[in-house]
Amino acid sequence: MDNIQEYKDKVNKTLKEFLEKKLKEDGRYSKSIRQLIENITEFNLRSAKRIRPLISIFTYKCFKDDERIIKPSICIELMQAYLLIHDDIIDKADLRRGKSSMHKIYEKQKDEDFGISMAILAGNLCASYMYETIIESDFNDTEKLNALKYISWTADRENYGQALDIIPNFKDIKEKDIWQIYELKTATYTIQGPIYIAGALANAPKEKIDKLQIYAYNIGTAFQIQDDINGIFGEIKDMGKPIDSDIKEGKKTLIIVKTLEFCNKQDKEFIMKNYGNKNINEEDIEKIKEIIKKCGAYDYSKQKLNEKIQEGKKSIQNLEVREEGKKFLLDIADYVNSLA
Amino acid sequence: MDNIQEYKDKVNKTLKEFLEKKLKEDGRYSKSIRQLIENITEFNLRSAKRIRPLISIFTYKCFKDDERIIKPSICIELMQAYLLIHDDIIDKADLRRGKSSMHKIYEKQKDEDFGISMAILAGNLCASYMYETIIESDFNDTEKLNALKYISWTADRENYGQALDIIPNFKDIKEKDIWQIYELKTATYTIQGPIYIAGALANAPKEKIDKLQIYAYNIGTAFQIQDDINGIFGEIKDMGKPIDSDIKEGKKTLIIVKTLEFCNKQDKEFIMKNYGNKNINEEDIEKIKEIIKKCGAYDYSKQKLNEKIQEGKKSIQNLEVREEGKKFLLDIADYVNSLA
Repeated sequence: MDNIQEYKDKVNKTLKEFLEKKLKEDGRYSKSIRQLIENITEFNLRSAKRIRPLISIFTYKCFKDDERIIKPSICIELMQAYLLIHDDIIDKADLRRGKSSMHKIYEKQKDEDFGISMAILAGNLCASYMYETIIESDFNDTEKLNALKYISWTADRENYGQALDIIPNFKDIKEKDIWQIYELKTATYTIQGPIYIAGALANAPKEKIDKLQIYAYNIGTAFQIQDDINGIFGEIKDMGKPIDSDIKEGKKTLIIVKTLEFCNKQDKEFIMKNYGNKNINEEDIEKIKEIIKKCGAYDYSKQKLNEKIQEGKKSIQNLEVREEGKKFLLDIADYVNSLA
Repeated sequence: MDNIQEYKDKVNKTLKEFLEKKLKEDGRYSKSIRQLIENITEFNLRSAKRIRPLISIFTYKCFKDDERIIKPSICIELMQAYLLIHDDIIDKADLRRGKSSMHKIYEKQKDEDFGISMAILAGNLCASYMYETIIESDFNDTEKLNALKYISWTADRENYGQALDIIPNFKDIKEKDIWQIYELKTATYTIQGPIYIAGALANAPKEKIDKLQIYAYNIGTAFQIQDDINGIFGEIKDMGKPIDSDIKEGKKTLIIVKTLEFCNKQDKEFIMKNYGNKNINEEDIEKIKEIIKKCGAYDYSKQKLNEKIQEGKKSIQNLEVREEGKKFLLDIADYVNSLA
């Protein structure tokens, strides 16, 4: 993954330029709109892995060797910002990428309601900006339209996934519901969306995209399994958010569903009582972690993660596409595995 | 306006069909997603004037005489739903079109936070649906792309307008700020957006669209002046929301800014103290109304409304376009005037 940093820098530069152009064009309306676009810019430019645009770029490189993909690749970063800003309202998260979440930034200016209101609007703006990056890109109209279709498809599914995530209580949830949420909420916009969009822009043949889709589903769900393991066992410096938030929120994850399935009656009662408790203490958090490891749910999750990654890699191993692109996609699969 | 009802029925039918298709396609994910799409459908199909799609349809008819415009004309109804659902969260409005606002529908299922969360997602879904109506329409790729560009432009400006609307306190606001809000928040998506989108799909010549834009700005702002007069002096049956909500919210309107400018010191103090007071009583509401009429702000607003309508009509009176379309646009101008 030698040229990753180079492309990451290009993504950051393109994102910055796009938002600076918005500020110049729309900032003229008023001081408060300038401030709003500046806040959106600061949020988008916070240090981040840029995995999603990189996936778009290297999927494109599976088929074509030009740099036109860089501009529209940022659409998926803007989608990310749109979803994170709204998710943080929903999850009442104070931190994002190590700094204040958008509603917290605005809450300081007035009150909680104002914070939520402005964050709703900031997220909405990122949503329309994401379409604009495709519309303004250097592709023909048919390629752009196809890419826009997948943007919308991705946004729809992501919102459905988010709804599923907040609707049922974790106590009633089954493993199959978790896979549904993982697919809609993560695989879609982390891997599938970036691949579909880039495939559309590259005019890639359908049978190759279908193979890439098997890859995308598997690596996308693996990504979420890993994220949820880190959500409980990770370090704060890696997450940019409090590491106990998944436990306090009662987040519905594979690892917790399997824990409830595998552990003994007494431990199950303990989890039922304490997982999702906003005021849980350090000691009880540690006890939950112990139960997860002891009962085998941690190992089960790790194993599933590994299976998904192997399955994903296998689906593209023999795919006849440009080597540069394929190599990245295979590497990213290993990278997900190494995120622990 | 003989064939208005006919086209309104077609808009309703098309909107219903589009949402039924979404339910069929995406409802399969789970019961809660089905319920979410059903709630979005019910919200969209509530009795409404459908002025925005009608403006799109008849702008298109200024240039072309076919029915392909009907399908994409519903994009602006979905935008309306998207914005209203989010606005109602921001304004804490319980009612919309005479029924529960979206967050109130979901609040009943759990609590206030859940209501807000689900309404954010429901609004987001309407936002991506609106792009899809254009993407799936029966136009060529260039026409569709141009229309999508204006969808995004409209959504951007509307969100900026909404931000302006909630940012400053009404006590500091000047008449020029009001015109800025009116343009961004109302003229854009009520008239300008529908006209630009239809113009793009009709491949209309730029010089004619420019004339239509003068019309759009004037009639759009007139529409908001009228809406704000009705927001204080209207009847509940016309509004579908509590008539005292503008006063209780302290909504920033031309009529209130001019009242503060025109009225005497004592009345100004009364307004400053009571406008925006959520617990204001009947008697004080009546007193505010009296002050508005007495000081001349009511007449000033009515006069501005009339000027805007005449200005708007004048800009297209001699425009060489198909008569059917032009007649509707002239009629709609008079209709705005008659909404009082």
